[in-house]
Order: sequence, then C-alpha cells, then structure tokens
Amino acid sequence: MNRFSAKSAISKQTIRRLPQYLRVFYDLHAYGRSLVSSTDLAAETQLLPIVIKKDLQAVGAPTKLRAGFKVAGTIEAIENFLGWDNLNKAFLIGTGHLGSALLGFSGFQNHGLEIVAAFDTNPEKVGQEIHGVQVYHTAQLKSIIKAKKLKIAVLALPGSAAQGITDTLVECGVKAIWNFAPVKLSVPEDVAVQQEDIASGLAELCAKLKSN
Amino acid sequence: MNRFSAKSAISKQTIRRLPQYLRVFYDLHAYGRSLVSSTDLAAETQLLPIVIKKDLQAVGAPTKLRAGFKVAGTIEAIENFLGWDNLNKAFLIGTGHLGSALLGFSGFQNHGLEIVAAFDTNPEKVGQEIHGVQVYHTAQLKSIIKAKKLKIAVLALPGSAAQGITDTLVECGVKAIWNFAPVKLSVPEDVAVQQEDIASGLAELCAKLKSN
Repeated sequence: MNRFSAKSAISKQTIRRLPQYLRVFYDLHAYGRSLVSSTDLAAETQLLPIVIKKDLQAVGAPTKLRAGFKVAGTIEAIENFLGWDNLNKAFLIGTGHLGSALLGFSGFQNHGLEIVAAFDTNPEKVGQEIHGVQVYHTAQLKSIIKAKKLKIAVLALPGSAAQGITDTLVECGVKAIWNFAPVKLSVPEDVAVQQEDIASGLAELCAKLKSN
Repeated sequence: MNRFSAKSAISKQTIRRLPQYLRVFYDLHAYGRSLVSSTDLAAETQLLPIVIKKDLQAVGAPTKLRAGFKVAGTIEAIENFLGWDNLNKAFLIGTGHLGSALLGFSGFQNHGLEIVAAFDTNPEKVGQEIHGVQVYHTAQLKSIIKAKKLKIAVLALPGSAAQGITDTLVECGVKAIWNFAPVKLSVPEDVAVQQEDIASGLAELCAKLKSN
C-alpha cells in the first residue's frame, strides 16, 4: 500500500469508470490494436471524448500525437493505478447465491483479487469447493486469516451478521472490506470499506423511469 | 411514469442514498419512533447531518420544528419519489448465481419491484421455481412480455448475450433495463438503462486501500 499517491486528486467517478476502460482496452489488445482515438473510445463506451481524455490522462495513460492512446501502455497505467498488476489475496464470507456469484465472477483475477478461501456456517457448504475455492467453517476464520495473512475481506452475509463478523475481522488485522450486506459497518479509520448497495442502482433506475 | 417531476434537480448521489434512508426509517417505524433528528440519522448512517437534511428536504420529507423528521411521512415521501409505493412488474433474464441472488434479494417488493417471471435456456432451470418465481425458456420471452405487458427487465446474463437480448426487449416495448451484464447496451433514447458494474466497487476499494 503505497503511501505516496496522487490519487486524492482523482474523482470517485473517474475511478469507477476505470474497469470499463480496462475491458475495452483488453479487447483492443486482443484484436491487435496498438493505438485508439478518444472518438473510437467514445463510440465503444458511450462516454464523451472529453471525459475519456480527462480520465485516462489522470492515470497517466500514454498517448501518441494525433493518434490517440497507446493500448498496451494504457492497460499498464490503469492496472498500476488500481494495484491490479499485483494479485491481492482476499477471502469471502457467506457462500449463498450472491457469494457464489462473486466467486464465479469471471476475471476476478484480472481485477487484482485472488479469493483464496471462503467461509460459511452451512454444513452443506463447509468442506466443499465453489468455483475452485475451498469453503471453511466460520469458526476457523481467525486462525485462517492469521495463517494466510489475509487483509481483504468480501462480505456476502445477511445484514444482521455483518457488524459482528466485521469486529472479528478488524481484530484479526483486516484492512479492507468489500461489503455487500445492506448495513453500514463501523470500523476504525485505517480500515477501508467499500459499501455495495443493490437498491441504489434500482433507485436510480426508478428515478430515470419516472422522468422519462 | 409521471411527466411532471422536479426530479431533474436532485443529484444522482442523493437518489443513490435514498434506499439507505428508507431502511433506517423502516427500522425506526418498526420501533415505534415517530420523529428523528438529523443528528440521530447521522449516527445511524455515518453521513453528515447537513447532507441528510439536504437529501430529505429534496424529496419533500415532512419535519416538525426542532424535533426533526416525521418518520411515517418521510417513508411516504421517499417511496412516492421513487415510485416504490406502486409495485412495478418486472422480469429477470438469466438465473445463474447472480440471477438467483437477485430473485432472493429480500425486500425487492419493498423496493417497488415484483419479479413476475424469469427466463433461462438451461433445461435444468426451465420449468422450475426460484424463490417462488417461475422460470420460462427464453424462447417464450416475446410472447410472455406481450401477454403480461411487462416494461422492466433485469439482465443477469453473460456479456456476450446481452445486446442481442436487449434488441429483442426493445422490440417488445420494454422501457427500463437494469443491466448486470458487463457491457454497455445500445438502446433508443426513451429506454432507461441502469448499468451495474461489480468491478467499479472493487476499483474504489483498491484506490482506498492504496491511499491508506
């Protein structure tokens, strides 16, 4: 975790668009393209060329005069910015439908995360493998986090269980939590939490529908 | 679909926070509270009181002088703003892990959506019920959309299949698409699309981690 970083200058909106750019650049790379204009990127992403230019310049994507962005170099710049050029080991708690969907999320490894363990209390799940990941009993949480020195947790639990588990994670030295449970977690300042709220997207859709 | 709406003045950020407020107000209501201060709401949501006040005033939440927001009235105001006081019928395409997780998403009905049909091509799924929702073969898509007059689709498909299905949906008169497939969809202007990108949340988390 790099202490020196120009990242604070980059907006949350830009950061959220980076995975989308990465997918387009991976495709371009696969098709053998070495350069791409922001106009072509605009057609592909349905974003404005000016937004794309600003976003990619912010992460230091290399350009060639009058020809656009260099494909391989831009992939490197985005991956490097997000730390996705190094695989971070993470673990999942909760292997219901959502947890299983997350384990099957193709390209997690392209996104710098390697899920090395999953936890559940359901006896039908414990001892199984889901998408190649071993499921342990939640009672083994502390010992496995410590043994494997894991710092990143993905929570796909019911809301009622999330804070209790979070307190245990913090005790064990976990530094980042990707939370899919529909509750705000209380954590110390040095722990990063990313809250996912499925209903937020639905709220946006409903607002768009009403204004159409 | 209300043609008259003050919604354009309300930011996307506010809209995305509304489901979170709703959950807190539902809890307060269940505990028999009739009023709540923005300070108490701040403790509950970890948002600044000034942000909360602005958000709730934007949707017309009723207040009582020096006592805060009226609980029942605020629930009504948010539900009404989002159209969640009327159940909208929707259907799901793709019943893999993610689709099944969405069908099991407790409180979908609290969020104004009733999923009345699901579609898949997998013979092991077709004819089954998942969380009480009947799964039909995708070949029946057109006839069922038309018969049930459905306007809202939830896509939990592989990216490669999403645009083809979307073209069919648009032909059938679908007006809103909640898209969990990792591709940008091309649709006519009068169709609302809400794009969910699981990797966006992960990008935010990684950026936070790096700056800690």
